[in-house]
Amino acid sequence: MKLLEERILRDGHVKEGNILKVDSFLNHQMDIALYQEIGKEFYRLFSGCGVTKILTIEASGIGIACVTAQFFHCPALFAKKSRTKNIDGEVYTSQVESFTHGGSYQIMVAKRFLTPDDRVLIVDDFLAKGNALLGLMDIVDQAGASLAGCGIVVEKGFQEGGRIVREKGVRVESLAIIDRMEEGKIVFRPQE
Amino acid sequence: MKLLEERILRDGHVKEGNILKVDSFLNHQMDIALYQEIGKEFYRLFSGCGVTKILTIEASGIGIACVTAQFFHCPALFAKKSRTKNIDGEVYTSQVESFTHGGSYQIMVAKRFLTPDDRVLIVDDFLAKGNALLGLMDIVDQAGASLAGCGIVVEKGFQEGGRIVREKGVRVESLAIIDRMEEGKIVFRPQE
Repeated sequence: MKLLEERILRDGHVKEGNILKVDSFLNHQMDIALYQEIGKEFYRLFSGCGVTKILTIEASGIGIACVTAQFFHCPALFAKKSRTKNIDGEVYTSQVESFTHGGSYQIMVAKRFLTPDDRVLIVDDFLAKGNALLGLMDIVDQAGASLAGCGIVVEKGFQEGGRIVREKGVRVESLAIIDRMEEGKIVFRPQE
Repeated sequence: MKLLEERILRDGHVKEGNILKVDSFLNHQMDIALYQEIGKEFYRLFSGCGVTKILTIEASGIGIACVTAQFFHCPALFAKKSRTKNIDGEVYTSQVESFTHGGSYQIMVAKRFLTPDDRVLIVDDFLAKGNALLGLMDIVDQAGASLAGCGIVVEKGFQEGGRIVREKGVRVESLAIIDRMEEGKIVFRPQE
């Protein structure tokens, strides 16, 4: 997505340790006009797939999921991160390794919001090692729902997440794929 | 907001300890058509106030902020909750007491996204004791930004948050105010 790549080049910053900061428009301050273009593009890619629910994970996926859901005219749903056992009982849970924060955390979705009738589009802001995505896919699987695919805003193509998920036969559409970041310079993978 | 009150009566559940569960449409699964009506109503109430930024707190405020920001044609911004000190340095922080989880947590907003030129509308899904709102107001204040007001989806009118914030001279618009919950029955405060 040209508009997004241009925005990353203009306003993104590469920090030490190959960390890409896009917090001025994507995951802290949120440029809603850009979000609408992102949602529209996910709709272009996944319309006709019978999507009934947009699933994401808190926190920075939520805005993307909500704006995207407007195009699909379906509900959005976010998996909650929790450190404590949920007392409600009626939840699907999955364990996610955290690269950013170290250790692992549990994600959960109430069972009544994901059923075998659902056709799910997972969306998230970043795909790197893929752990959050695998956790969400695990929950879709537990629910007996079917997965239309994954819509990612920025994929770090030099990390293994995208490969792992695609090798499972899952359709992953990333609006920008970063092949490498060298000396602060961002190089995108060509996509048509 | 009639539509919201009807929805709360239809799909909300009062659980032990006066806890209102609205997770089927507001803060876990999100009914985006309802979100759009909420955003439209906040715009009706606060348009003409010169709002330049919608501020909220993660996680469940984010979707509301994003959908609302579409009507104001301005960015949305969410305060991050953190248990660790931010190493970036350039952040405003405030301490928030947590009723739900016990203890307290720190919220933070990068300084460069909130300036004295900003006119801020704070939005959130719930207002009860008001601690999160007071933390967000503290950050707006630290930034030297001005506050247009607070847009709340559901206010628990039997808790003190709404009174405390209004007594500070802040305009608080709550789309539904619950005066009491008795034996599972929800009673709304009449609003014109």
